[in-house]
Amino acid sequence: MGNYRIAVLPGDGIGQEVTSGAVDVLKAVGIRFGHEFTFEYGLIGGAAIDEAGTPLPEETLRLCQQSDAVLLGAVGGPKWDENPPHLRPEKGLLAIRQQLGLYANLRPVVCYDSLASASPLKPDLVQDVDFIIVRELTGGIYFGQPSGRVVENGEEKAVDTLLYKKEEIERIVRMAFTLARGRKKKVTSVDKANVLSSSRLWREVAEEVAKQFPDVELEHMLVDNAAMQLIRAPKQFDVIVTENMFGDILSDEASMLSGSLGMLPSASLSASGPSLYEPVHGSAPDIAGMRKANPIAAILSAAMMLRLSFGLAAEAEAIEHAVQQALTAGLRTADLAQSSGRVVSTDEMVEEIKTAV
Amino acid sequence: MGNYRIAVLPGDGIGQEVTSGAVDVLKAVGIRFGHEFTFEYGLIGGAAIDEAGTPLPEETLRLCQQSDAVLLGAVGGPKWDENPPHLRPEKGLLAIRQQLGLYANLRPVVCYDSLASASPLKPDLVQDVDFIIVRELTGGIYFGQPSGRVVENGEEKAVDTLLYKKEEIERIVRMAFTLARGRKKKVTSVDKANVLSSSRLWREVAEEVAKQFPDVELEHMLVDNAAMQLIRAPKQFDVIVTENMFGDILSDEASMLSGSLGMLPSASLSASGPSLYEPVHGSAPDIAGMRKANPIAAILSAAMMLRLSFGLAAEAEAIEHAVQQALTAGLRTADLAQSSGRVVSTDEMVEEIKTAV
Ligand SMILES: CC(C)[C@H](C(=O)O)[C@@H](O)C(=O)O
Ligand SMILES: CC(C)[C@H](C(=O)O)[C@@H](O)C(=O)O
Repeated sequence: MGNYRIAVLPGDGIGQEVTSGAVDVLKAVGIRFGHEFTFEYGLIGGAAIDEAGTPLPEETLRLCQQSDAVLLGAVGGPKWDENPPHLRPEKGLLAIRQQLGLYANLRPVVCYDSLASASPLKPDLVQDVDFIIVRELTGGIYFGQPSGRVVENGEEKAVDTLLYKKEEIERIVRMAFTLARGRKKKVTSVDKANVLSSSRLWREVAEEVAKQFPDVELEHMLVDNAAMQLIRAPKQFDVIVTENMFGDILSDEASMLSGSLGMLPSASLSASGPSLYEPVHGSAPDIAGMRKANPIAAILSAAMMLRLSFGLAAEAEAIEHAVQQALTAGLRTADLAQSSGRVVSTDEMVEEIKTAV
Repeated sequence: MGNYRIAVLPGDGIGQEVTSGAVDVLKAVGIRFGHEFTFEYGLIGGAAIDEAGTPLPEETLRLCQQSDAVLLGAVGGPKWDENPPHLRPEKGLLAIRQQLGLYANLRPVVCYDSLASASPLKPDLVQDVDFIIVRELTGGIYFGQPSGRVVENGEEKAVDTLLYKKEEIERIVRMAFTLARGRKKKVTSVDKANVLSSSRLWREVAEEVAKQFPDVELEHMLVDNAAMQLIRAPKQFDVIVTENMFGDILSDEASMLSGSLGMLPSASLSASGPSLYEPVHGSAPDIAGMRKANPIAAILSAAMMLRLSFGLAAEAEAIEHAVQQALTAGLRTADLAQSSGRVVSTDEMVEEIKTAV
């Protein structure tokens, strides 16, 4: 019986609907297992720009810092697309990652049996796929300085900087090895060491860390090859660890293995403070408010929260089982409609999962 | 009836076998159409390191500069993997791109009907796929300075620089629009404008260039989404234009649509001097010398050379038809063995194509 404070930041578009679904499921878990979850709401992204003039208000940050964990929906939408860079919804996301020190982004990629046919890949290739992408989230080209526009000798240029400190690499690679220990004991470190200096440091550090995990196999893979292998033979992977931008690209690509971006949860772990949980999908403005968004990614993110922030493994499993059950029963939100089953609304899916936890 | 000097740089691994196949096919084209092709050989990559102590000898560069076009195999292999950065085979490739000013890398992605079942994607998704990736090849993070290792306050760091000049973006985007005019009139410009300054400049310049091509549609796509869309719905693309690193990742990913990396040719066009043609695949050291490599990517690269460097469209088509015919006849190198057909050696495939041009 625990008492947990959860900061909920719905954000924009379908972020609202899917976090509301995840909160409902958490409430059901609370009742069933006798925990008290307190939900406090904050603004982020476009919603925050509209109401508070900034994509990450101080108040939101404070709320998060005083919470045990953060549940985020999604940010962004065409309404703010023409805003200047500092008033873009994504800035709120980047700022919260940096402010809370969310250095480790965990993105499990699992293909549920009942959804194997929803993937663009051949079913036998994706059946039983089960790996996790560990993406470095607070370094690299996302945050390196200088970054901006320059005019030199009348020439207009723009520059971005990909920078990694040894210790930033160390802690994320160590996270990957630690996770691999509890899994199939294989780490694939993805880099572009034949071109980038930062990747050569990355590879060196990965080798060093590997020495402390003699029971785990380490393999290096170039990012271009990884982009290919992910669809050629995805079952070869167990834990993939990579830098921020490569992780961004590869994890969106990998989402197709599980049938839909609407299935993928993520955890962004902090070194010290509260961690953050969010679906991998974006705000999907085109279907926002239509109650057809897939709430599963957000619900599975809540399960990750229970397991990783609160140590509530049985509770997390209850959610994961309930999701499996709903899928096996044939419920499909619109994004999964290619695979056989009954197309349902966000609410029907939430209802089914909630009653099954 | 023309006279053409072709510099051939086989490089490493299967580079040897596949360029030799492409040269055979070019000779057959020469006889059939009455052209004289002169082939002169140069060293590059690991082969050049072994024989001349550097991955791109002066002599090779001179040979290329005095030729009408360059045919390259592939570079790299485990033998040189532990070499210091400046003695790595890939440095030869990067140096020749820079020295010859090969700013535009064209990578057509076509799925042949007879190979639709060889792709990891469902056949109905890849059937009739036909787009081209236009990758910027001499700028961006591949060449930006500073790039290297630093120790600051006892902290070890590594840095790379992603830099683009406005005019570098302009000329590659213009190339994409020009190509789109002769195709389905749609350009997808891929960037990460929600994070990178260089991408925001890229997007601006793309918009500007688009004004000169009112008959061509321009769409912007974030790189993470592009990595997903390439497998979710690849038929939506006509011409994709993007910066160096994104192009590297996306084109290897896209290779899976055509069944095998062994099918994909590429052209690297120079602003002024000779252009270079090479298969997208690497040196594949694991199968080097076994005569089982797929020579089609190299052969189709030769066809691109005929069309783009020499203006010999009918000759290029003769090669492309011969390749189609060999595939329709059921010939398959090992990499295509998943799709029905008869598995043949490199030589048998070359022989079949050669006699059909
Ligand atoms: C919205 C954007 C800044 C973000 C990223 O690039 O990290 C998103 O794509 C993600 O993967 O969470
Ligand atoms: C070998 C390597 C340097 C090269 C690149 O990254 O450009 C290769 O992957 C390619 O795509 O031609």
